[in-house]
Amino acid sequence: MNLKDYILNVENFPIDGVGFKDVTPLLNDAKAFEFAINQMAEFVIKTKADVIVAPEARGFLFASAVAYATKKRFVLIRKPGKLPRQVISVKYDLEYGTNILELHKNDIKPSDKVVIVDDVLATGGTTEAIIELVEKEQGIIAGISFLIDLESLHQKELFKQYPLQKILKY
Amino acid sequence: MNLKDYILNVENFPIDGVGFKDVTPLLNDAKAFEFAINQMAEFVIKTKADVIVAPEARGFLFASAVAYATKKRFVLIRKPGKLPRQVISVKYDLEYGTNILELHKNDIKPSDKVVIVDDVLATGGTTEAIIELVEKEQGIIAGISFLIDLESLHQKELFKQYPLQKILKY
Repeated sequence: MNLKDYILNVENFPIDGVGFKDVTPLLNDAKAFEFAINQMAEFVIKTKADVIVAPEARGFLFASAVAYATKKRFVLIRKPGKLPRQVISVKYDLEYGTNILELHKNDIKPSDKVVIVDDVLATGGTTEAIIELVEKEQGIIAGISFLIDLESLHQKELFKQYPLQKILKY
Repeated sequence: MNLKDYILNVENFPIDGVGFKDVTPLLNDAKAFEFAINQMAEFVIKTKADVIVAPEARGFLFASAVAYATKKRFVLIRKPGKLPRQVISVKYDLEYGTNILELHKNDIKPSDKVVIVDDVLATGGTTEAIIELVEKEQGIIAGISFLIDLESLHQKELFKQYPLQKILKY
């Protein structure tokens, strides 16, 4: 099965000049989705992680099924104002402006081994912010799994210090 | 296992006077999450649905794992501007103001049997909008599954015309 058959390239989305990888056809095919999740689950099991973390909203689309398939804990990274209890926050730069991500305090315990799951690696800014949040809570990054790697948008060595899965490369 | 042990009531969130049901402790316990997903999956299989639909972002937390567990297609309901291809939209009233939800055109085929999965039933406005989107595409609502029913916020008979699962009632 070639999972690229289930990824649509949508030009000029969300802004002119940008090509967007649309993962919804993959979600809308039960066999393709299962195939993708099983690959992510296999990677997660190898890392011996305790916890899967994922950023809203598209990270949740994969992390939930991976957490279920691997019987791992599932912890959320959300935008400001979404998590109801005490949070820690990280602010990071985007191409234009800044973004903030939050993690509930104490959802990750010191020495928890954590795998980050997300749909797309672009510049890596979101992932860097998640690593910072996890490490503030004294969690250990045990691996990072991306469905899609947009190789032209970041340096080749990005995140190479961690066990790294990139299922589809563009 | 009593899943209510894994739901936190957070007072005055997101606004004063509102009690928020926080499902993150359930997600952060692998056994509790598996137990909840297995109950939802059992319901979905009984409906003989083809497709699971869920609204962002918290609906994704459950629907992804349920889609994987049941080998069903998974179609997204998103806020405006998030789905990259042609969409159909529904605007609906909230207590203050209005909200819009979108569905990709043709993601649901005529006669598809559809189950809606979401974390919380409150007033039912979001679910009503999703039903409208699915029926605009000539899909058939085969069932609705909620992890949590906040019974005091809606009429008792709401959605009783559909096969209905409410795992936890408050």
